[in-house]
Amino acid sequence: MTTETLNARSITTKANVYFDGKCVSHSFVTAEGENKSVGVVLPAELTFGTAAPEIMECVAGSCEYQLEEGGAWLPCTAGQSFKIAGNAKFNIRVKDAFHYICHYG
Amino acid sequence: MTTETLNARSITTKANVYFDGKCVSHSFVTAEGENKSVGVVLPAELTFGTAAPEIMECVAGSCEYQLEEGGAWLPCTAGQSFKIAGNAKFNIRVKDAFHYICHYG
Repeated sequence: MTTETLNARSITTKANVYFDGKCVSHSFVTAEGENKSVGVVLPAELTFGTAAPEIMECVAGSCEYQLEEGGAWLPCTAGQSFKIAGNAKFNIRVKDAFHYICHYG
Repeated sequence: MTTETLNARSITTKANVYFDGKCVSHSFVTAEGENKSVGVVLPAELTFGTAAPEIMECVAGSCEYQLEEGGAWLPCTAGQSFKIAGNAKFNIRVKDAFHYICHYG
């Protein structure tokens, strides 16, 4: 099941722009008071780092991700999620677009 | 004064991607029930079309915009807005990034 909308309390108006715009997200606070972001990764192969643990939930499009250098590349499509540890890096490659919700903690 | 956050009711998780990602926005519904979007235009010169009238409010960065072909290019920076009629086109050019709230109607 794909999460098309989320209840929100407030939204940060300035976008987060990473990798020259290959990834753009907007941060918001849910109705329950949790910090999350919604974003999109455009065609690219990128390495992201985490501070807190994150769950990336795909809401449209798809990606492949690699949690450990040299490890398996796994697919993630709409309705699927993957979890990344805190203080970790992961690789992601996108052919078309990967629309996601980022859940923290 | 710059609008850094907005009260929201719900957010659409899938981004709107225009011009191969030169413009990315996320749609949301305000606490008052109005449809708006927050977005960013990256370095580019683009022509946008409107359906309903729009007010583009700059929340960070800047752009220059031209409401009529051959007309003046006007600057818009954080805290400023410009209004576009419905069923109209406008040109925008961005050197760094133009972060905006789009108000409809």
